Amino acid sequence: MNEAAAGNEMYRLVEELYPICRSITGNGVRKTLERIGRIIPLEIHEVPTGTQVFDWTVPREWNIDEAFIEDSNGTRLIDFRDHSLHVVSYSVPVDRMCDWDELEQHLHTIPEHPDWIPYRTSYYKDNWGFCLAHRDLERFKAGPYRVVIRSSLAEGSLTYGEAVIPGATEQEVLFFNHVCHPSLCNDNLSGNAVMAELARRLRERQSKFTYRFVWAPGTIGSITWLSRNEERLQRVRAGLVGVLLGDAGPFHYKRTRSGSEEIDRVVEFVLRERQPGAKFLDFSPYGYDERQFGSPGIAMPVGRLTRTPNGAYEEYHSSADNLDFVRPEYLVESLQVLERIIEVLEGNAYYQNTQPKCEPQLGRRGLYGSTGGSQPKQREHAMLWVLSMSDGTHSLLDICTKSGIDFDVVRGATDDLLGAGLLEG
Amino acid sequence: MNEAAAGNEMYRLVEELYPICRSITGNGVRKTLERIGRIIPLEIHEVPTGTQVFDWTVPREWNIDEAFIEDSNGTRLIDFRDHSLHVVSYSVPVDRMCDWDELEQHLHTIPEHPDWIPYRTSYYKDNWGFCLAHRDLERFKAGPYRVVIRSSLAEGSLTYGEAVIPGATEQEVLFFNHVCHPSLCNDNLSGNAVMAELARRLRERQSKFTYRFVWAPGTIGSITWLSRNEERLQRVRAGLVGVLLGDAGPFHYKRTRSGSEEIDRVVEFVLRERQPGAKFLDFSPYGYDERQFGSPGIAMPVGRLTRTPNGAYEEYHSSADNLDFVRPEYLVESLQVLERIIEVLEGNAYYQNTQPKCEPQLGRRGLYGSTGGSQPKQREHAMLWVLSMSDGTHSLLDICTKSGIDFDVVRGATDDLLGAGLLEG
Amino acid sequence: MNEAAAGNEMYRLVEELYPICRSITGNGVRKTLERIGRIIPLEIHEVPTGTQVFDWTVPREWNIDEAFIEDSNGTRLIDFRDHSLHVVSYSVPVDRMCDWDELEQHLHTIPEHPDWIPYRTSYYKDNWGFCLAHRDLERFKAGPYRVVIRSSLAEGSLTYGEAVIPGATEQEVLFFNHVCHPSLCNDNLSGNAVMAELARRLRERQSKFTYRFVWAPGTIGSITWLSRNEERLQRVRAGLVGVLLGDAGPFHYKRTRSGSEEIDRVVEFVLRERQPGAKFLDFSPYGYDERQFGSPGIAMPVGRLTRTPNGAYEEYHSSADNLDFVRPEYLVESLQVLERIIEVLEGNAYYQNTQPKCEPQLGRRGLYGSTGGSQPKQREHAMLWVLSMSDGTHSLLDICTKSGIDFDVVRGATDDLLGAGLLEG
Repeated sequence: MNEAAAGNEMYRLVEELYPICRSITGNGVRKTLERIGRIIPLEIHEVPTGTQVFDWTVPREWNIDEAFIEDSNGTRLIDFRDHSLHVVSYSVPVDRMCDWDELEQHLHTIPEHPDWIPYRTSYYKDNWGFCLAHRDLERFKAGPYRVVIRSSLAEGSLTYGEAVIPGATEQEVLFFNHVCHPSLCNDNLSGNAVMAELARRLRERQSKFTYRFVWAPGTIGSITWLSRNEERLQRVRAGLVGVLLGDAGPFHYKRTRSGSEEIDRVVEFVLRERQPGAKFLDFSPYGYDERQFGSPGIAMPVGRLTRTPNGAYEEYHSSADNLDFVRPEYLVESLQVLERIIEVLEGNAYYQNTQPKCEPQLGRRGLYGSTGGSQPKQREHAMLWVLSMSDGTHSLLDICTKSGIDFDVVRGATDDLLGAGLLEG
Repeated sequence: MNEAAAGNEMYRLVEELYPICRSITGNGVRKTLERIGRIIPLEIHEVPTGTQVFDWTVPREWNIDEAFIEDSNGTRLIDFRDHSLHVVSYSVPVDRMCDWDELEQHLHTIPEHPDWIPYRTSYYKDNWGFCLAHRDLERFKAGPYRVVIRSSLAEGSLTYGEAVIPGATEQEVLFFNHVCHPSLCNDNLSGNAVMAELARRLRERQSKFTYRFVWAPGTIGSITWLSRNEERLQRVRAGLVGVLLGDAGPFHYKRTRSGSEEIDRVVEFVLRERQPGAKFLDFSPYGYDERQFGSPGIAMPVGRLTRTPNGAYEEYHSSADNLDFVRPEYLVESLQVLERIIEVLEGNAYYQNTQPKCEPQLGRRGLYGSTGGSQPKQREHAMLWVLSMSDGTHSLLDICTKSGIDFDVVRGATDDLLGAGLLEG
Repeated sequence: MNEAAAGNEMYRLVEELYPICRSITGNGVRKTLERIGRIIPLEIHEVPTGTQVFDWTVPREWNIDEAFIEDSNGTRLIDFRDHSLHVVSYSVPVDRMCDWDELEQHLHTIPEHPDWIPYRTSYYKDNWGFCLAHRDLERFKAGPYRVVIRSSLAEGSLTYGEAVIPGATEQEVLFFNHVCHPSLCNDNLSGNAVMAELARRLRERQSKFTYRFVWAPGTIGSITWLSRNEERLQRVRAGLVGVLLGDAGPFHYKRTRSGSEEIDRVVEFVLRERQPGAKFLDFSPYGYDERQFGSPGIAMPVGRLTRTPNGAYEEYHSSADNLDFVRPEYLVESLQVLERIIEVLEGNAYYQNTQPKCEPQLGRRGLYGSTGGSQPKQREHAMLWVLSMSDGTHSLLDICTKSGIDFDVVRGATDDLLGAGLLEG
């Protein structure tokens, strides 16, 4: 598949998933995972309501059929069928009349953007509410109003999907993304689509590492996943939360808790190579699921890759994060950065020079030009750097950073030296 | 007492102490400590002449009654009664005639500031001398001159005063200032007055730490104090030499020997908060009593707070360091900075998150807003930061510095989390 | 000898050595060492062909008598007698006719500098070649050409010279320079001459350290020297490869492998003192013999001092690196920098304050002015700094860097304190 076609495929997936009303549990998530599973086969996990996951409890499952507000003439002022953002997520069922003073407490708008519908949730407090364009408040003439939300909150389960692509070693690279947002495109459908395509491509290759992809609801989903996989977490050599990958903004990499993991160095290297305007953020405890991976008792080597980060664009968590906000070419660019990150992760390693006393004689092994007096070539330079720094404490990435030579050239020189027996792994 | 009244009180103390002729021993120091003792009760220590204190010996006690130079007509050219700076401190007694060539060797002036009297001492070498305005040399017509200094150098003692304000723990915070300068206002009366008022205020509060204030002569006084308290020095968690606190200049903090003590971080934090123009100096072995606290075999966590530092203002060590040079409002500002330093020292601590695996669920404890989708409030942010960084290696001050959130907000969030059992001390 | 005379002497040596055809083995090296030995007596080492030195083997010895190319009229187009660069170093013997197509493969020029002859070698691959000014290609009318190289490649030895100047301790300072380049002045005759004069001067002094100077062929020479001295390398406390010391360019110091050795600090200190425009380069595995000293299994504290570094000037490795390119005044300046490096290395040390609790009383030891109240003098300041930092973890150089005081003043203050028993070594 060429890259333009891949962009269109990912964008098509975003389009198909857009109308679905997702939340942290329920059939919206199941439908989403079922569609993603057509690109990359998923193992689906259902974790029952009431399961204790660290300090949290898996909540009741929420589903919704319809919801609307009617005026006293029976005119529908707001209808969930028009937009899944219209209902506050996890709204309890309601069907009754109420006057303006009460109703007003349950309406959410964005006065600065009168045409946009906000995104609101009430997962852990029983409540109900509607979100609407501020301009549409004009339609609310005198009450009373009929408010109907045909939702259910019941014993059920939290759903997440996982794809594992085995590699030569059990060491894992983890890609985590959330699937709990309703009709919002960049947050979270862009990440869902890029991750699906990335997994599909990895399945067609031989890899050194095992790759694990998780599509799960935000916060409670990552907490649940961590709680259920605690004894296997040491296998994770590196990871990324990959979200907000479809807008035009520059890449933003948020570092792991320690800020000094291999994944931090790899992503910085790749972004500096690919996009001079990329930005780097230290770990902070607000954001997406990287918060859980970076909590003090978990402290995994998991960073976060986004384009414009959460809260840094106006359209964030509103109906303006729609199909126009995400473009196929940005999805492709994000995919390519992730592939390059994987390439560098796979190719990076520590080696030991087997002839560490003085330089080995490269010339008699055919690795160095035979006429002296002029400058060596880049490949020869790269070999000298690899031999010099391969004392077991410097990775190939360190060698690239120090020497300023491209990763691919250093990797190639390393392969030559391995072939000549001048390095060992 | 409101702050303006406190400023006037401190300034009044400076005025009263100004005429007294102090030196490193003698009745001038005793009178000064007696007056300070009316604000904060002092324990007075008398250390006999000849006492060995590390490499030094407590010198003979020096007192002076009168001193003058008369010309051949009996006209007084210089009279100690006019200004205590007129006599070189520790001048030996003298009463005899001398001609200009000899007398000249014993006169000190500041040619660049012809109206100012310099401050000079000769503690450890028997000598005598007069200090005077350069312009007054004109009055010295033909000699011979009669020189009289009615001083005494005799067995006696070195005097210092101490006030201890007990706190909940035996860990001490030490405030050290010198009382050996004669009629100079900024150096040292400003510090004497601010420390007295600070001690008085602390006596009216409950504190976590025990506060120790020392008023002692410079150099020999701190050496004596350290020598006599050697076995108790580990109790000192933090300390400041607090001097030169009454002029208009910006604050200058001189770091402890290591430069990486808690007091260094606290003072830097407070000064950055209070005065963007504040300056920070690394430890150096020239200055005031911080030299002794920072000597290699003592190496205590004691920094130094001044406004304009020693030698950095023209009036330094001259009669121009007078009652006009010090103002009540600067004394108050210095006092407030010291109080804020104490507040941060008292409030700073290391905690341990009791639920370190993933975030604890703040919402069900009423600590987090129940409607999701919009940004958390500053207090909520502060709680996330405190939970994230409280792994035992980060203090609240570190958390403030990293997060950019105010100390008081972080402290308040910490108290909430302690109340909910999510932190332990 | 005054400095101008020293400059002329060094330049004279360069002039005398210039016509000699040196290579990595052979009589050119022997003649060069014989001439240097008249300035500083050398121990000459001959290492037989075939000797294994780490990953390398000492090659056959190469000597050359004559070489030329004639056209079909018997006109000499190129003659080795005109310039030793005309023959590719280590050219195998040849005496035959060849046409232009074949000959062209064996000719080397620099088209961008049509008047300059390049320097080329073929040490480890049997080959032959001529180097010439690009402009001289015009003289090559129709062939065939007669090509004669009367060289020999035979069992023999690799030659290097060593001078050891014993000091009070067995700890060594190593100065290494190469002698394998034919008629090139800056590379390597400037270094050969400066090292000879430096060694001569050291022989006339008492030193703390033992000084070892080595004149050896590049690469194979340093590898040979290291291989034969492996068990003695720990004696080397500091070292420099000193080459390219005669041109007008600013000094460039290339750091040791670790970059944090004493020699790194000393050279940086001296160059900052002597030449604000001096440049500092991190270790890299391309250059001169510092590559071998900095290889991962050797990792000695040996840096490299040059003026303009290898490859950074147009004349590098061409006939334009001639007697005009090197000037006596630059040779002298290089010599003086090296002498200052030695002075600081010899004078630098770690001491321990014997009275570390508070300041010792300098006044009663006559080390401090007796009149107080005014600023101390620079020597007094230096004593305070030395006492303060002499806790066994700071060298005098560290004290200079921290205090900003000159090395000579700090060294003098240290001697005073040693004399007073206030420091121990």
